[in-house]
Amino acid sequence: MSRIYFDNAATTSLDPEVLTVMMPFLTEKFGNPSSVYSYGRETKLAIENARKSVAKILNANPGEIFFTSGGTESTNTAVNAAIRDLGCKHIITSSIEHHATLHTVEYLAHSGQAKLSYVNLTPNGHVDMNNLEELLAGSPDRTVVTLMHANNEIGNLLDIKAVGELCRKYDAIFHSDTVQTVGHYPFDLKNTYIHFLNGAGHKFHGPKGVGILYVNENIQIKPYINGGSQERNMRAGTENLYGIVGFAKALEMATATYEKDSAHINGLKTYMGTRLQELFPGVLFNGDTNGRSLYTVLNVSFPRTEKSDLLLFSLDMAGICVSGGSACTSGASSVSHVIKALHNGKSDSLVPIRFSFCKHNTKEEVDAVIEKLKELI
Amino acid sequence: MSRIYFDNAATTSLDPEVLTVMMPFLTEKFGNPSSVYSYGRETKLAIENARKSVAKILNANPGEIFFTSGGTESTNTAVNAAIRDLGCKHIITSSIEHHATLHTVEYLAHSGQAKLSYVNLTPNGHVDMNNLEELLAGSPDRTVVTLMHANNEIGNLLDIKAVGELCRKYDAIFHSDTVQTVGHYPFDLKNTYIHFLNGAGHKFHGPKGVGILYVNENIQIKPYINGGSQERNMRAGTENLYGIVGFAKALEMATATYEKDSAHINGLKTYMGTRLQELFPGVLFNGDTNGRSLYTVLNVSFPRTEKSDLLLFSLDMAGICVSGGSACTSGASSVSHVIKALHNGKSDSLVPIRFSFCKHNTKEEVDAVIEKLKELI
Ligand SMILES: Cc1ncc(COP(=O)(O)O)c(C=O)c1O
Ligand SMILES: Cc1ncc(COP(=O)(O)O)c(C=O)c1O
Repeated sequence: MSRIYFDNAATTSLDPEVLTVMMPFLTEKFGNPSSVYSYGRETKLAIENARKSVAKILNANPGEIFFTSGGTESTNTAVNAAIRDLGCKHIITSSIEHHATLHTVEYLAHSGQAKLSYVNLTPNGHVDMNNLEELLAGSPDRTVVTLMHANNEIGNLLDIKAVGELCRKYDAIFHSDTVQTVGHYPFDLKNTYIHFLNGAGHKFHGPKGVGILYVNENIQIKPYINGGSQERNMRAGTENLYGIVGFAKALEMATATYEKDSAHINGLKTYMGTRLQELFPGVLFNGDTNGRSLYTVLNVSFPRTEKSDLLLFSLDMAGICVSGGSACTSGASSVSHVIKALHNGKSDSLVPIRFSFCKHNTKEEVDAVIEKLKELI
Repeated sequence: MSRIYFDNAATTSLDPEVLTVMMPFLTEKFGNPSSVYSYGRETKLAIENARKSVAKILNANPGEIFFTSGGTESTNTAVNAAIRDLGCKHIITSSIEHHATLHTVEYLAHSGQAKLSYVNLTPNGHVDMNNLEELLAGSPDRTVVTLMHANNEIGNLLDIKAVGELCRKYDAIFHSDTVQTVGHYPFDLKNTYIHFLNGAGHKFHGPKGVGILYVNENIQIKPYINGGSQERNMRAGTENLYGIVGFAKALEMATATYEKDSAHINGLKTYMGTRLQELFPGVLFNGDTNGRSLYTVLNVSFPRTEKSDLLLFSLDMAGICVSGGSACTSGASSVSHVIKALHNGKSDSLVPIRFSFCKHNTKEEVDAVIEKLKELI
């Protein structure tokens, strides 16, 4: 049985070309980039070239890009720095952020380091921009706004330019969790009012265990991980050399084929959505599926029945990989905080399934999954 | 010109056998370990097997081993947790710790979260145990002691069992930075009074970007990196799957050949030390070189002259990789904080060089380096 992998929002396969570029650093080029001899300088150079390439793609300066262990560490660094180093005493976020954000802000609020506000959401899960402005206008203290660019479960996209402009107006610090969009959308950071954003290599066919944090050059923060002087004193620890080189290569590849890939993937999403609607009358679309939404994510709810209750399990048995919520939520059989927030009170009667696509997926795979769903429901 | 790599305390080459074990996870086995389908469960299993293997080797419980992004992150996590979660208000450390420790404790002291004491050192760089007991006995508050097992620059070894017993006596929390000893010495954690220790894969022919934190099961801490429920809610972020698998394999290999390798490496160190003493009358040994000392590290000082001033550079030109201090210190041409602490005031007249060996090094390489040194000095 060949597997169908529709869980690309959880993680993606490492591109063989990316691995090829990583291989020299997994074998003969192992020198510590902080060393002074030429053998270390050559790995240092590889890291600096990776940084330049990433910066160029995001239209940022190389000095604004820091390599980290992943999207989660980057979010922790940004949000903590806003409180510790930038004088923010108030956090505005939403209830449907990733746990990397939610658990970080909850800790900061709980330990008395900041006040915490959750912005209202529209019925289909977008940030209520009027409410965001009210919260900003009503804050006596400097505020950090942390709102994700794309929701990893339902795919809703935030207008980061518009949120940025609101933050500019109220002199707020703005962090956006862009883990689902870096490598999937173009960025133009020199023309976006934003202080922090993050990315994770494994979300766009790059390696796991490596991410970036963008820190706008107009702010000055301290490291979250203290120690050696790596990453210009901003992130200590011997560099994940192959990870960094692989991150840059994967981002370059994603950027080079963005038009073609996004059109293809968007076609799969639209096609599958249409087919589901035709065939399963009770199906609900979670989020703004056909509006401002990630082209990679299709999140639907089936009415809960004895059969649909086993859906994830039965799909797995059929070699079809999909998620109930995000991969990072344990006890994935229970409905996630995002779906709960969207269907307040009624989520128990639903079985949410997230299909998330990549460039390797095909229409034939969509057809096969649809056939299987017809059998199972 | 073939290279001679005598900087194994900075980083080591990845063992090809370790890479072989990592390869399936860099290619077809890419599933997110937090996923519920079988494809994720197989990678989850790989992580749990790695954890069991590491635990067994250290004589710990699997529940006490957490995978992190490296030695630095582990130290940050441990020391911060001691203050934040375990009620410690006083830190005892030494002035010759790694920067991962020093910059972390300095931050905590500077921000008013803890009082900071530096234990006295003996002239050859060991911890003065009487002074350590005095500091513990005189502390009105609960204390965390953070002292490294082996110094990465001069190689001095701490008697962690003895320090542990002192910590037990005064109910102190004990963290030891064991980055230079995990993978190089046997551990028996069930019979050692210690709360935290750390390791980094790249110091024993494992991968970069991955480390461990051991947390004794009798204490309860919160994560330093917040987010998803990975690592049993103790370290969030999609796992560095290949890194974790590689860490365990490298530790298994190091353990299997420990007797043979350590004898061989110790032989190189002793031989080189003897030859240097015979040939260079002014040479000084930094640290307790022939006493309680890492078998992998030989740190010597040459008198500063016009020629020796260029030593690092000239050795590099000759394809010989060595360090002045640790790799993690920037501006490596200046003398490190460790050497300064040992030679108070007089370190400017010295040119310290660290030679650090691994199982792949040979007596012929030592001879070649000695010949080169004769030419250069
Ligand atoms: C003693 C010691 N502690 C901590 C570290 C930090 O480890 P890493 O750079 O892998 O985070 C190192 C090595 O760089 C070390 O030698
Ligand atoms: C939106 C979002 N933010 C943050 C993360 C965390 O990234 P990582 O697990 O790579 O640290 C993820 C993915 O897991 C995500 O989808």
